[in-house]
Amino acid sequence: MISSNEERYPDWLRRRAFSNPDRLALITGGQQFTFSELDARVDCAVDWLASQGIAAGTHVALHLPNSQGFVELVHGISRIGAVLVPINLRLTPEEIAWQLADVQASHVISADPTDEFVAAINHQSPEPTLLAIDPHDPTWEIDAGSGCNEHVESHAPDDIHAIVYTSGTTGRPKGALLTYGNHWWSAIGSGLNLGIHADDRWMAVLPLFHVGGLSILMRSVIYGIGVVVHESFDPDAVNRSIRKDRVTIISVVSTMLRRMLAAQPDRDYPDWLRCVLLGGGPAPQPLLEECAGRNVPVTQTYGLTESASQIATLPPEDALRKLGSAGKPLYPNEIAIEADGRFATPGEAGEILARGPIITAGYYRLPDATSDAFRNGWFHTGDAGYLDADGNLFVLDRRDDLIVTGGENVYPAEVEAMLSGYSLIEEAGVIGVPDPEWGQRVVCVVSCADGAAPDPDAIRLWCRERLAGYKVPTEFQFIREPLPRNAGGKLLRRTLRSWFEA
Amino acid sequence: MISSNEERYPDWLRRRAFSNPDRLALITGGQQFTFSELDARVDCAVDWLASQGIAAGTHVALHLPNSQGFVELVHGISRIGAVLVPINLRLTPEEIAWQLADVQASHVISADPTDEFVAAINHQSPEPTLLAIDPHDPTWEIDAGSGCNEHVESHAPDDIHAIVYTSGTTGRPKGALLTYGNHWWSAIGSGLNLGIHADDRWMAVLPLFHVGGLSILMRSVIYGIGVVVHESFDPDAVNRSIRKDRVTIISVVSTMLRRMLAAQPDRDYPDWLRCVLLGGGPAPQPLLEECAGRNVPVTQTYGLTESASQIATLPPEDALRKLGSAGKPLYPNEIAIEADGRFATPGEAGEILARGPIITAGYYRLPDATSDAFRNGWFHTGDAGYLDADGNLFVLDRRDDLIVTGGENVYPAEVEAMLSGYSLIEEAGVIGVPDPEWGQRVVCVVSCADGAAPDPDAIRLWCRERLAGYKVPTEFQFIREPLPRNAGGKLLRRTLRSWFEA
Repeated sequence: MISSNEERYPDWLRRRAFSNPDRLALITGGQQFTFSELDARVDCAVDWLASQGIAAGTHVALHLPNSQGFVELVHGISRIGAVLVPINLRLTPEEIAWQLADVQASHVISADPTDEFVAAINHQSPEPTLLAIDPHDPTWEIDAGSGCNEHVESHAPDDIHAIVYTSGTTGRPKGALLTYGNHWWSAIGSGLNLGIHADDRWMAVLPLFHVGGLSILMRSVIYGIGVVVHESFDPDAVNRSIRKDRVTIISVVSTMLRRMLAAQPDRDYPDWLRCVLLGGGPAPQPLLEECAGRNVPVTQTYGLTESASQIATLPPEDALRKLGSAGKPLYPNEIAIEADGRFATPGEAGEILARGPIITAGYYRLPDATSDAFRNGWFHTGDAGYLDADGNLFVLDRRDDLIVTGGENVYPAEVEAMLSGYSLIEEAGVIGVPDPEWGQRVVCVVSCADGAAPDPDAIRLWCRERLAGYKVPTEFQFIREPLPRNAGGKLLRRTLRSWFEA
Repeated sequence: MISSNEERYPDWLRRRAFSNPDRLALITGGQQFTFSELDARVDCAVDWLASQGIAAGTHVALHLPNSQGFVELVHGISRIGAVLVPINLRLTPEEIAWQLADVQASHVISADPTDEFVAAINHQSPEPTLLAIDPHDPTWEIDAGSGCNEHVESHAPDDIHAIVYTSGTTGRPKGALLTYGNHWWSAIGSGLNLGIHADDRWMAVLPLFHVGGLSILMRSVIYGIGVVVHESFDPDAVNRSIRKDRVTIISVVSTMLRRMLAAQPDRDYPDWLRCVLLGGGPAPQPLLEECAGRNVPVTQTYGLTESASQIATLPPEDALRKLGSAGKPLYPNEIAIEADGRFATPGEAGEILARGPIITAGYYRLPDATSDAFRNGWFHTGDAGYLDADGNLFVLDRRDDLIVTGGENVYPAEVEAMLSGYSLIEEAGVIGVPDPEWGQRVVCVVSCADGAAPDPDAIRLWCRERLAGYKVPTEFQFIREPLPRNAGGKLLRRTLRSWFEA
């Protein structure tokens, strides 16, 4: 008997350029590219990479904004068999230098390296080669004869596609190894849940250096659909682009979606926008209710760097029935809840566990952290949540953010979601601070609009009608700017904590 | 590092019943079932199978028409870990007995076994247990305590799902081993080409005992879409069902499609019918042109039992531009043409080769036939065709049907497609018969409508203006009934040949 289950993935972009050469692949910076055009440009990028000494196995860091150059390099790095290391643009030069050393990057490609950036890199050993490009108009010029003769025509599922550093809401960043198999199963699992339409166009306005953005590029070439890349988030530009570029799917976090809705309060979204994929943490109930009322097809998800983006997604037909849930795991992955070292019962909160082919192969050069995360064959997410009787996931919070006050568990996200329904509050961030009597007590940073001056006692009274007493914040700080978040939109509770400590 | 690419498929129906319990799964015989309802009924079917002595590894033959019972047993046989052997209903009792012995079936489930059927089976060793059921109203009654305690919760890609006998347009039927991996990749490759819509409904009017029908059941549970099962082909019933049951995709062969169009000459198909998947051999040009003129979204395919159904499919945007082509291979499979023991150049005809994860694991208990088919790592289809410069497949014919006359190759399908454009001809079947002077000569059986009496000389003259002289049939036989075809809609040239020999 012949085993014909060949487990290699032929170059996704190349296959789409073969199957659907004239189909739209990319819209960015006012330009459009078909799969055939993108494929040809990526061949040029590969030649350029080779001419710079990049080969199979090389770790190549991208320090670039969302752009045509970013997209072409992601596919080019894959085609040459190198490993992609996307760098968070918001990091300081020192943080970047640390990541480049940790990941053993041989090259870093940057749009506009500052003197501090150059100085930080120069200190390290091995010192990565710095390559500067114009990401919005990349020209892949090479000397004659220095092109690449070796394209990797297919990848095994376990081959490493990228090393993506976890966004680090707690502790030191870890390089999650994302394999071709992780991306493939992420795309297939999502497609089997959300569907795949030949005329889909997926907007990438989340940073491409995070897995939520990067995964859209993978889906584009696996599904054969267009991706609409925005360099940065501007609610008006996004709203316009949804119409002009016929966007059918958009990935956003709650703050983005709220600003998009606020920017066009009296106008509906077009029918063709079939899925607003909402990630980056538990969504506030008032936002979900506004979406339901305005027919915005919001689909809540739960995802991680370590799961190559979404692992659970609420299917379209449950969007209203299960408001607030992140839905069920994508085929063929599984989710479980661990409480007190055993599997939790339905409704019981605990740490969210996950397993399946979308889960990272581990952390780069961190065998202890890897084996710690993968106890008993399950990946331990560090997030808290519960499953209802139907198997829908409700994400409560980062487990590390859990507040224990007087023996009672308080999940900050629950309190925040409630507070965001209070009229004068734009955003609320809830944390626990040490308390000699109760262990911890609940405190809150409130972001409010200019001129608004909420009364702490009034807020507490309002809360007390809606929440158990031990959940009501004992102290408030009011600020005028938005709450501090990482590039993936996750609230930085560490920063809030340091404010209360100061 | 942890390899997380778990290569097992959790029970597809069970997962859909978990993810989308209330979504429509099946419409048949005037009844509807959601995934949750179907899942529960299949559990009952599994208990019934177990109570009859069927267990993991058992070969279970189904001798049933398209029906609710057929669908439930397909999923039930899989869930208990047994192997499905679908039997062609048009076979004689002797042919069936031969297949049951060849496949070592321990059980055969039949709707209405005739005395001849029972007598034929009784002769064999081992003698399969005959179970009679009402397939349109199956009751899975069991004695207390005799249910199944062992469900197979997941399958490895190489596990055998079914043994499907090749339809036998030439030679003796061979049992093609179809694995879970074959079905999975068939569904994924097709979905990445045709798209997957959450509201899709796929009509199965092709026999479920052939892979063209069976594969629809696999896609239903993998995609989470409804399947609309018709017991037999009635053009009016099919046209009505497309509207009433909101069918979006239908798999047909040319003769069916022609009759469907003829049954509603003045009425368009509804917008939601997005794909008419046309298989079963090269399609006549006039039919394709009528479809183009009437906005019927016809999508030509090329498939085989050995490739778990389609292996090449013309993508929607090329439907008009490449009329007559079967398109490009489904991801990640490959197609090549072999001529004179080497790969053919574009446009050059030869034997169609295929490889990839949708190709059969081999023929049951036929190591020689298997290794003969898999020379040099490619599956040799026995069909003739060519690839154009863009990689689109044009199927010419069964290689065994190639006519060589005076050293010139004549592909019957080309001549048949031309003849079907002649006004008085309904269908034409072209074959080669031995000729002392030319080796073979081209002859033709013509099916014409009642009252029509085409003049052979006029046909020849008409052909001569459109075809090279050596391709024009030298002799005609006229019949009033349709041409003989197997259940998959393929022309039985063997039968035509016997008519000329008689």
